[in-house]
Order: sequence, then structure tokens, then C-alpha cells
Amino acid sequence: MSYARQMLGTCRVSFNVDADLLAVTIDALNDCAQACMADTGCDLSEENVAEMARCVRLCLDCADVCIATAGVISRQAEYDVGVVAPLLEACAAACKSCGDECERHSRMHEHCRVCAEACRSCERACRDLLGALG
Amino acid sequence: MSYARQMLGTCRVSFNVDADLLAVTIDALNDCAQACMADTGCDLSEENVAEMARCVRLCLDCADVCIATAGVISRQAEYDVGVVAPLLEACAAACKSCGDECERHSRMHEHCRVCAEACRSCERACRDLLGALG
Amino acid sequence: MSYARQMLGTCRVSFNVDADLLAVTIDALNDCAQACMADTGCDLSEENVAEMARCVRLCLDCADVCIATAGVISRQAEYDVGVVAPLLEACAAACKSCGDECERHSRMHEHCRVCAEACRSCERACRDLLGALG
Amino acid sequence: MSYARQMLGTCRVSFNVDADLLAVTIDALNDCAQACMADTGCDLSEENVAEMARCVRLCLDCADVCIATAGVISRQAEYDVGVVAPLLEACAAACKSCGDECERHSRMHEHCRVCAEACRSCERACRDLLGALG
Repeated sequence: MSYARQMLGTCRVSFNVDADLLAVTIDALNDCAQACMADTGCDLSEENVAEMARCVRLCLDCADVCIATAGVISRQAEYDVGVVAPLLEACAAACKSCGDECERHSRMHEHCRVCAEACRSCERACRDLLGALG
Repeated sequence: MSYARQMLGTCRVSFNVDADLLAVTIDALNDCAQACMADTGCDLSEENVAEMARCVRLCLDCADVCIATAGVISRQAEYDVGVVAPLLEACAAACKSCGDECERHSRMHEHCRVCAEACRSCERACRDLLGALG
Repeated sequence: MSYARQMLGTCRVSFNVDADLLAVTIDALNDCAQACMADTGCDLSEENVAEMARCVRLCLDCADVCIATAGVISRQAEYDVGVVAPLLEACAAACKSCGDECERHSRMHEHCRVCAEACRSCERACRDLLGALG
Repeated sequence: MSYARQMLGTCRVSFNVDADLLAVTIDALNDCAQACMADTGCDLSEENVAEMARCVRLCLDCADVCIATAGVISRQAEYDVGVVAPLLEACAAACKSCGDECERHSRMHEHCRVCAEACRSCERACRDLLGALG
């Protein structure tokens, strides 16, 4: 059980979304940021690095947006929908772009296949939370 | 002249927005992140820290979103509007919330007055860039 | 199995430390950053927030240093000992300070108990990797 | 005058180092992080991107460590030397490595010349603050 999940139950906060959904999203965001950071390093070590430049860039964007989103939704007591909704949208879009690019390299580079998987999960989690904010 | 501004002219990138507007926005984002990080520390040192808890939280959110946005728009070759537009919207909203809260404390705490100023500038810059993205 | 661990095996990189030890450390750093971000939010929601100000500050420091350290060691091909060794030292020290402070609050606040646990694990992992760098 | 500098004078904090030195360092860290983020994007857009891979990696490391260091020293009330000293050391080393690599490309790429300049200033500022910590 992740730390986020353990903590959500013990914290004096009245979230107006389901705590499980929130924990799943925080975990997916952190996992995706971790995958994108690692994939950046792997991409930069490939022989065909010139073909990986776009992948590096999208991994960096995705990691940055995931970390910011994880920070914001981990700290929120009451959701500020004006911030959280577009942030989740931006995050889902960054995960989609990065996941698409990683998938293009997934046959050649196993690390990109793994990263694409993390991006897909995170995109889904962001969209699910967005739906629940409704 | 900021480093971002110096670099934008020397970089093989065909931005589809005005380079000056882009440089102003990157500077405003970095300045605002810096102000929010510093204000967090100042707030936590105040005697009335209990009244500053919301301000700390909003400064943290604002700094995180500004740093992510600065990273994304500093690195972009061609803008991925699906990511950049909602990210700038989230950033403007985070600056607005943080600026409003800081303003409430600006008479009592000079550091909050300074931070509010940084948030207002950054909010404007984000909205200007959003407008230019069309 | 974490994404970091899955990727380390598939990446064209000749680490001069054991890949398992590296993966354990990256996971511990990411988990600790996540715990500290969540604990910050919980602390700021407590009624006795004035007593939690030091805890908030140390959690923020710990999260920042853990994220930077995770980024650096995730991306390294060959270790630059001049950077990695003092960074791991700073990280272990940040985890120690934060873990000590969280422990002081662990009876009163379960979220601090969980965070202290994450800090202790991460401190150990950083020291183990430091030892292995020789 | 930077926001950090404006705030340091208005904040209830008894730093045990000179406030001007601290402000100079915070500014240098933020400027260097900004330069490294921008240089990463420029490097990834170069035709000879394969030769820039090491530069990208070192810019990413440098930016991450600078941001963490700026956060920690912006928030500190009393310095925790066990954290701050090795962190400044790691940061100076990251600036040195990145500055050296950027300098190698400075004739060919003006953006690397600018980034090298930012790294040199930041390295100096970190070492000056380290010296003042005694």
C-alpha cells in the first residue's frame, strides 16, 4: 500500500472526491513521473539518440506536469476546481502525447514500452478523477 | 536581460508565438515561483502561522505549477496546444488564488505584498500568452 | 515491481553500482518525496498547525532534495561522484531531520508516523548507496 | 531587484549568514535553473543532437539540483548545516560539470555559451555561501 493511500485515511481533510480514487491518481502520477525520468536517461543513452529527441522532450514535459499535479492534489483540502480541472486536463494530454511517442519506440526500446504503460495508466487516472470532479 | 531571453534568439526553434512574449512569460513564471517559495518560508516563520496555513498551501501550489509551466514552455519546439493551453489556464488560476490570498495578508506582512505582486504579473503573462496561442 | 526497476534492466547503461541497490534507492526516494508532499498537506490541516510549522518546512526540504536526487540518479550513465556523493549525503541528512521531527508528532498524528517511516527507509537507502559508491 | 532580495528584508527570520549573500545565491540558483531548462530545449533541437546528449543530461541534473537548493535555502530559518553544506557542494559540482560541458559547445552553439555563463556564476555563488557557512 502506497504512502499516499496510507495517509489519506489519517488526515483531517474533507475531500469532496472518493479517497480511493484520489490515492490511485496520486500513485499513478508519481509512478508516471518516475517512469518518465528514467526513460529520459535511457533515451539519452541510445545509439539512435537523434531519433529519441522528441521522446526526451515529451518525457520531460510529462514528468514536470505529473510532479506538479501530484503536489497540488496531495495538498488540497478542498479542491480549487479552477486550478485542478485544467491541470488534470494538461496532465492527461501530456501523458497522451508522451505515451503515443513512447509507443512508437516500444518495439525497439523496452524502456519506452514500460514508460508508455505508465503514461497510459496515468492518463486514465487523470481522466477518471476529472470525471469525478464533475 | 534574463537568460531565457538571451537564449530564445539563439535557438533553432520556430516558435509559433512572439519570442518576446514567450520570454516575458518564462521570466514571470520563474520570478513567481521564486517569490512563492520565499513567501512559504516567511509565512512559516510568522507568529500567526495558523492564519497563514491557507497562504502556505496556495504558495506551494502556485510554485509547483509555475515551475512545471516554465519547464514545458522553455523546452517546446512546436507548441502542443492540448498541453500548453490548459496548463497556462491552471497556472493563471493558481496565480489568481495565491495572489488573492497573499493580498489579504499584505498589510500585515510585507512579504505577502511582494508575493501578491509576483502572482499578479505572472497571471497576466499567462493570460497574454494564452491569448496569443489563439 | 516499480517502473524504475523494470527499466534499469532494459537500458543501455553501464552503472558502476549494483542495479538492484540503485532501483531500491530510486523507489525509496520517490516514496519518501510522495510521503513528504502528502504530510505537508495533512500538517497544514491540523488544528495545532503552529506546532507543525517546523514539520512542514522539513517535509518540503526533504521532498525537494529527494526529487532532485531521484532525477539525478535515474539519469546517470556513469556516476559523477563529485555530484552524487554530496547529494546523497544531503538527502540522507534531510531525511534524518524530517524523520526525527515527524517522529515527535507520530503519537498525535498518524500521518506523521507514516511519513517518518518513509524518511527512515530513504535515509537508509541513501546511506547504502553512498557506501556502495565507495 | 529580485523578489527573493525584496523578501529577505521583510521576513521574521534570523539567518546566520549575510542577507545579501543569501539573496545573490538564491538569484544565481534560479537563473541557472532557468538557463539549464532553456538550454535543454535548445540542445534537443540541434542537428547534432547525438553530440549534445551529455549536455542535455548535465543540464537536467544541474537544473534539478539548483531548484532543490533554491527551495531549501529560501525556506530555511536557521540553517541545518548537515543538509545545506553538502547540498551546496553537490550544486557547485553539478554547475561545474554542466558549465564545462556547455563551454565545449559554446563556439558552435551560442545558447550553450549563455548557459555556461549562468553555471559559472551559480558555482561561484554556491562556493561563496559555503565559505560563509564556515
